[in-house]
Amino acid sequence: MTFEIKERDAAGRLCQFTTKHGRVTTPNLLPVINPNKMIISTAEMKKRFGIEILITNSYIISKDPALRKKALESGVHNLIDFQGSIMTDSGTFQSYVYGDVHLDPVEIVRFQRNIGSDIGTILDVFGTPGITKDEAAKGVNETIVRAKKSISEKGEMLLACPVQGSVYPELREDCARQLSSLDADFFPIGGVVPLMENQRYTDLVRCILAAKRGLDPSKPVHLFGAGHPLVFPLAVALGCDFFDSSAYAKYAQDGRLIFPWGTEKFNELREIPCCCPICSDSTVSELQHLDEKERTVQFALHNLYVSFAELKTIREAIRAGWVWELVEQRASTNPFLAEALHVLREPDHRNWLEHYEPTSKKTAMFFTGPQTMYRPAIYRYHTRLFSRFELLFDTTMVLPEGTKPYSMFYAQKVKEILRKKNVNFVVDSSLGPVPLELDEMYPLAQSVFPATLDKETKAIIRQVFKRFLKNTTVIHWDANTTVQPEKSRTAMFDFDKRRISAVADMQFGHGAATALFQGKLTIIKSKRTGKIRNIICDGRHVVSMRAEDGLFTLKLEGGSRLHTGFKYPLLRVIVSNDAVPFVKEGKSVFAKFVIDCDPDLRPFDECVIVDKDDSFLAIGRVILTRDEMLSFHHGMAVKTRESIQ
Amino acid sequence: MTFEIKERDAAGRLCQFTTKHGRVTTPNLLPVINPNKMIISTAEMKKRFGIEILITNSYIISKDPALRKKALESGVHNLIDFQGSIMTDSGTFQSYVYGDVHLDPVEIVRFQRNIGSDIGTILDVFGTPGITKDEAAKGVNETIVRAKKSISEKGEMLLACPVQGSVYPELREDCARQLSSLDADFFPIGGVVPLMENQRYTDLVRCILAAKRGLDPSKPVHLFGAGHPLVFPLAVALGCDFFDSSAYAKYAQDGRLIFPWGTEKFNELREIPCCCPICSDSTVSELQHLDEKERTVQFALHNLYVSFAELKTIREAIRAGWVWELVEQRASTNPFLAEALHVLREPDHRNWLEHYEPTSKKTAMFFTGPQTMYRPAIYRYHTRLFSRFELLFDTTMVLPEGTKPYSMFYAQKVKEILRKKNVNFVVDSSLGPVPLELDEMYPLAQSVFPATLDKETKAIIRQVFKRFLKNTTVIHWDANTTVQPEKSRTAMFDFDKRRISAVADMQFGHGAATALFQGKLTIIKSKRTGKIRNIICDGRHVVSMRAEDGLFTLKLEGGSRLHTGFKYPLLRVIVSNDAVPFVKEGKSVFAKFVIDCDPDLRPFDECVIVDKDDSFLAIGRVILTRDEMLSFHHGMAVKTRESIQ
Repeated sequence: MTFEIKERDAAGRLCQFTTKHGRVTTPNLLPVINPNKMIISTAEMKKRFGIEILITNSYIISKDPALRKKALESGVHNLIDFQGSIMTDSGTFQSYVYGDVHLDPVEIVRFQRNIGSDIGTILDVFGTPGITKDEAAKGVNETIVRAKKSISEKGEMLLACPVQGSVYPELREDCARQLSSLDADFFPIGGVVPLMENQRYTDLVRCILAAKRGLDPSKPVHLFGAGHPLVFPLAVALGCDFFDSSAYAKYAQDGRLIFPWGTEKFNELREIPCCCPICSDSTVSELQHLDEKERTVQFALHNLYVSFAELKTIREAIRAGWVWELVEQRASTNPFLAEALHVLREPDHRNWLEHYEPTSKKTAMFFTGPQTMYRPAIYRYHTRLFSRFELLFDTTMVLPEGTKPYSMFYAQKVKEILRKKNVNFVVDSSLGPVPLELDEMYPLAQSVFPATLDKETKAIIRQVFKRFLKNTTVIHWDANTTVQPEKSRTAMFDFDKRRISAVADMQFGHGAATALFQGKLTIIKSKRTGKIRNIICDGRHVVSMRAEDGLFTLKLEGGSRLHTGFKYPLLRVIVSNDAVPFVKEGKSVFAKFVIDCDPDLRPFDECVIVDKDDSFLAIGRVILTRDEMLSFHHGMAVKTRESIQ
Repeated sequence: MTFEIKERDAAGRLCQFTTKHGRVTTPNLLPVINPNKMIISTAEMKKRFGIEILITNSYIISKDPALRKKALESGVHNLIDFQGSIMTDSGTFQSYVYGDVHLDPVEIVRFQRNIGSDIGTILDVFGTPGITKDEAAKGVNETIVRAKKSISEKGEMLLACPVQGSVYPELREDCARQLSSLDADFFPIGGVVPLMENQRYTDLVRCILAAKRGLDPSKPVHLFGAGHPLVFPLAVALGCDFFDSSAYAKYAQDGRLIFPWGTEKFNELREIPCCCPICSDSTVSELQHLDEKERTVQFALHNLYVSFAELKTIREAIRAGWVWELVEQRASTNPFLAEALHVLREPDHRNWLEHYEPTSKKTAMFFTGPQTMYRPAIYRYHTRLFSRFELLFDTTMVLPEGTKPYSMFYAQKVKEILRKKNVNFVVDSSLGPVPLELDEMYPLAQSVFPATLDKETKAIIRQVFKRFLKNTTVIHWDANTTVQPEKSRTAMFDFDKRRISAVADMQFGHGAATALFQGKLTIIKSKRTGKIRNIICDGRHVVSMRAEDGLFTLKLEGGSRLHTGFKYPLLRVIVSNDAVPFVKEGKSVFAKFVIDCDPDLRPFDECVIVDKDDSFLAIGRVILTRDEMLSFHHGMAVKTRESIQ
């Protein structure tokens, strides 16, 4: 098995997963195949949806003499006629639904191995939401005992060990941590079907977050039994990689159609609000006139088209960086999902999410409503504003939104103030107080907000403003102040210096400006846009400012200066001796060669690469967080940009 | 031509429109056909999308000698090979894009008539957003002059007269009013393309609202040049019936794909977030390998699939009553659209929207975020609470959300208060202060809100609470109050009386309870649910309470009592003498037979049907508002339920 992160956004990831039967791109959905009752054949699924992986049930196969015989003789892939990756479930869910199913936990794992399952599942103990904490803890313990026994039987099969613990986050996290210490390969989050059936998304979110905290980040995470696309975006944003759907078939049999926003009864529809091939090629009346069996097939196909389209949407959102936008938009379709987002605002979870949040994205931040103000990127901006940005002076001038950075220097009134004393300039923006020095930095300039905000969002911002400005005298900009046409090169250069210092401190930490910009400073600007491009100190190119996000790209000289200015392990990725020659050649750093890393580095941050004696080797861009670097065996940890010689 | 309302929600409507070439269901989209350059043939559009109507350009046809000849000889339907309804545009848009196009306003209308267009368009004067009010007014005047001249030339052709007036709502409304006084058949809202191109949705909303206020409500309204599905839901909610799309082709030629949330560049996508037949049958890489012309066709088909699916969604939303939900959900995908919704909160517009808002819906009200609190149904509830509901006592007890109506009577603490004095009971609900008497009435019991609201929404509610409770002493319910198991039939009956009185006043107006419930009162309840079903006074069945929305259905006796208790024209629909015999037979009232109507009746309200001497004839349910009843020539105005003899 290999599993590596290719793209990422929020705490979600787009990974490449391989089994003996091929590659799978995550996030993905495993259609549930009942070998006794295939509504849609695996061949048709492959053709229509290009499925790379599916899940079937080893319990059902083992209990049916004919299926059992065929599976043991020719393997599960031939039994269900699918040569891609096959995961098998163990019968845990059946024991939850039908009561005791008389299975031997080790026997069923052996059976899965013997029929050639790519990913087998242990017989875990399903912890329903209604049980006491003691009962749940007992179930967790038994699950772990069984996991240990099962691991010794897995052979070459990958083994899935579900995280249980009912609705008790401490138990979930503990279960996850214990399972992660074993030689398990794949982590379903189990026992959550009753939560989803009752739309208890708040509890679901708590279960996912607790499990993710405890799990080895380098293993796939599967939200077991999640087959409705409504939960996909949020679950992916929290780091789930796999879903499985029997919903497509169950709902179809029940005459219900799946949509990204929920489920509709076919009989209550006059037109189907969908453009999938089924709904485009047939009218409601044509579908009504099909015989029931054929209609069920059509409904099941529709359900899968919609589900896979949602996964395509989510993967595109990860690639382009609009996962939170998608999550918030989907939450607007279901009040219980909207409520579940509130959990993410709790300090612990907020910090956990900030940890995985990329520092830069391909697309601008889109406002979806007041909830947008709670996004990790905005939380980070505000946190850093208080911890890394210095309000240098005791007077703050609040300028109206949209004020251009240099225009104020020519205003008569501002000149007077400047003559008297130094002043901070803060723009009254949609994202709260934006020091003018930072107004081109992600996400401030890369955000699409309404010109006029609703009063609910304004109230959230006011809170932040208040805290930010509490120790300074605040003067509001007079909109009627005359703007003088004259220019002052000195004033502009002074302000450019303020800008690069502020951005450096916000991006790398307090003190970065001092470390980076020693010596004679030259600021080179784009002739076309007038924006800062390159910063030269004593004739050496230290950093470049990226046009797309207003953040710095390190040059080797800049990396070296940060290496001197910040002590170990700050801003560093430490690589093993094996990797040193490759890094020196400019090759990127793979996760397995990382010894340690500054825990404050965030995805896509610039970093300094050093060996274990802290000798400076190179600079690059971080792809993984520290916990990921230390766990993953595959994939790139740092994209090296420049190295010493 | 006929045009009649079949279903409705928000200020939107699902209508049946007929031309000489057949029936069209609205809201609908007219694909733009360029007879010189058909990317997709009309036959294929018919086959794939079942299009009932399209639009082509008479200016382009008239300028091309070959097309002109063929169109005049065999008609526009044969020219473009389409036997459904065809609308033609006049060249106004070309004059806006290319400058002066040398057209004679009357000539081009005659030409459209001569080629057999079903709906021709006058050569109106395109008022761009940048012009002054004087210039805009001049354009409006010239448009009206041309409309008048054109009308005398239209023959059997329906004539579309666009509402102009740039971004000046007064001019738009005035233009609409003047055009409505002429014998025009179809009203595009013109000059809005530049607003949509620049995402100026706030201005677009103001233009639509102003036009709708001035327009004859019985004529189709077309948002001219709106081809992106992003604006469809909001435009429909405000009463637009038609859109036209050249966007499907233009965007396709430019390599851009349309989605309900916006537009994406094909080259920037790795997977297409869509399940339409094009995107389901081909991968991005397969589409990349097509030759450019064929790829453009595929993009255009995708664009149309998505656009028509959005219209199917909107029509379903109208049928089931979730148009506002859809509007708010779509607004979460675009900050400028979200901003445009703020316009609807302005007092004038809020009242206009309340006027068209149905009083009852098939589906529950879904919360999408704080913006939901501004919906017309909630505004109406709060307005009526202040104007129709009486806080009878000077003490108000605020109960926690979810309190069951009768449980409180057995609480020890409440008993003490009751012993001392009478008390109002108000539930602390997601929708603000809900008097316990009203807790089963739409939208209070028919709403799906999160159990825990975000603080932004709570702030909005607190405002209303404050106002509602300002004149009473407020006591908050103590959650620990012991609830006694004993029951009191008298207390329950007393409370039932309070409930039916309160609902009657809220539904029909202050004084309705007194009018309806005179005499010996018997309240019949459902044995299964315990809810109030029928109300009998002096042995006569006066009203029934509907299980689905907690509102009353009038019986003939109830209608007669309201007729006596409320003076003319309150609660009445007045029909002409021609209709009287039919109404007496229990036939429904068609719009053309309505003489007048209580302007305070709202769609789906119960009403009293009388003749012009105010003799009581029947009771029924209103389908149209007063302005619609007085304008429409087709379709049902009141669904009669019971009539005298």
